[in-house]
Amino acid sequence: MSGKARIAVVGYGNIGRAAADAVLEAPDMELAGVVRRNPQDRAGIDPEVPVVGDVAQLGRVDVALLCVPTRQVPETAAAYLSKGINTVDSYDIHGELVNLRRQLDEIGRAHDAVAIISAGWDPGTNSMVRAMLEFMAPRGITYTNYGPGMSMGHTVAVKAIPGVRDALSLTIPAGQGAHRRLVYVELEPGADFETVKQRILEDPYFRNDETRVMQVEAVQPLIDMGHGVRIERKGVSGRAHNQMFFYDIRINNPALTAQVMVAAARASLRQKPGAYTLLEVPIIDFLTGDREALLRRLV
Amino acid sequence: MSGKARIAVVGYGNIGRAAADAVLEAPDMELAGVVRRNPQDRAGIDPEVPVVGDVAQLGRVDVALLCVPTRQVPETAAAYLSKGINTVDSYDIHGELVNLRRQLDEIGRAHDAVAIISAGWDPGTNSMVRAMLEFMAPRGITYTNYGPGMSMGHTVAVKAIPGVRDALSLTIPAGQGAHRRLVYVELEPGADFETVKQRILEDPYFRNDETRVMQVEAVQPLIDMGHGVRIERKGVSGRAHNQMFFYDIRINNPALTAQVMVAAARASLRQKPGAYTLLEVPIIDFLTGDREALLRRLV
Repeated sequence: MSGKARIAVVGYGNIGRAAADAVLEAPDMELAGVVRRNPQDRAGIDPEVPVVGDVAQLGRVDVALLCVPTRQVPETAAAYLSKGINTVDSYDIHGELVNLRRQLDEIGRAHDAVAIISAGWDPGTNSMVRAMLEFMAPRGITYTNYGPGMSMGHTVAVKAIPGVRDALSLTIPAGQGAHRRLVYVELEPGADFETVKQRILEDPYFRNDETRVMQVEAVQPLIDMGHGVRIERKGVSGRAHNQMFFYDIRINNPALTAQVMVAAARASLRQKPGAYTLLEVPIIDFLTGDREALLRRLV
Repeated sequence: MSGKARIAVVGYGNIGRAAADAVLEAPDMELAGVVRRNPQDRAGIDPEVPVVGDVAQLGRVDVALLCVPTRQVPETAAAYLSKGINTVDSYDIHGELVNLRRQLDEIGRAHDAVAIISAGWDPGTNSMVRAMLEFMAPRGITYTNYGPGMSMGHTVAVKAIPGVRDALSLTIPAGQGAHRRLVYVELEPGADFETVKQRILEDPYFRNDETRVMQVEAVQPLIDMGHGVRIERKGVSGRAHNQMFFYDIRINNPALTAQVMVAAARASLRQKPGAYTLLEVPIIDFLTGDREALLRRLV
């Protein structure tokens, strides 16, 4: 491939916006354009960036960053791979990702394209850390503690409850992989808070966790995209017990997801056709620059 | 390859002992034996483990774990690779490892064998973390803070000074990648403490760091193989600043080095002939077990 990799951003929500930023900051990439359902909507997009309804309008595209809702990822990835375009997604349904990998692996091989799936921070770089800690201390227990930060999945679940105009669900770490939920709800006129609260407490997303529900006048002023995680492992290396490992991050959530997707786009251009999780790609492939220079600086 | 991988441990100091333990604990490996200069010395080795002076006496060997002093690694690795045996080392001369990789890459390709170099915790798994943090936040600064723990290199430097019978140099993190050195010396009869102290303070290993030198009656009772590291990065993902990352470990030093070497031995059996650093090997290759089951559990 000559020159810079041409990247399309598919979908333009929080992650799509952050992905466009990360592509524009990458020295080895150029933003081919944005693909979205309504290409007339150019709000917040630089006038020089093409916005289209069909990727074919963008000319050569090497990698598509799929910034669409997670349930649309399988179908969208299949469509792009079938055109011979590499794909990167941040698919986050843990129980389904092995099936997605199998499906996309077949399509990628058939069309000489590469898919890198679940390329966010969890699943994603957190998965890489969990796997590393496991080979560093093969016996032991790992806890992944999320937060404090906004849970997209839990927030969407609350918003679906009748009478809720807007909502925010925060995940608060309670230790050893347990979590507390703080739910802020803004109600429709006439809705009954106690009824909504009961619905939330009985919802499968919440009923196993300690949950506090609070009514507020307005949810939007509370929203902050910061998030965090603390991964802990205590384990055994060889016959040495009490090996202690901690990994802590405090980050802007969509910005980190998007940056990992951009690194995975680069890595996709260095893999053979097929589908990969981040665990299956050498770390150096996510980085730009001369390989020996990277090794001298980082190893 | 049918059955378990057969592993030889070459050299039997602190790391060799820990490596034998880690091989014995690995479900997919068996300890072919120990290779050492004096095979009559069986102190601390299980009677069932063969101890030999030449690896040819061990029958089939798939991987040799080179637990020899770092300066002997290039020559020892070349000799084993030339026999078609994979090698893993924990070579720790940062400035030279790119050259070592080139040399061993050529020899490995010529003899259908794989070398994984610098497979400890630094260089090694710390290098993997540094590289990950860099693709997660491409702009920013990473600090690697070592300790508190015993520095092998600094301890050896002190022991080489005339008048020193035994020594221990501790590395204490002083923040932002700077370190303080605490040096405990046990003197030969008649040696002058002030003279020894001046030699230490002027030594290239110490002269750039704040160093405290203390005389003790006996060094051995002070020695503890625990060590630690804290890697910190503050950086930018896309256009989001102030992304914060911390990685902290508190570990038995030779046990972790040995465990990483054992994981790298496993990974070596899954690479094409040549030489690799840990950054060039997919993380999943370091783990044992069914690949999809690993992905289900860890991603």
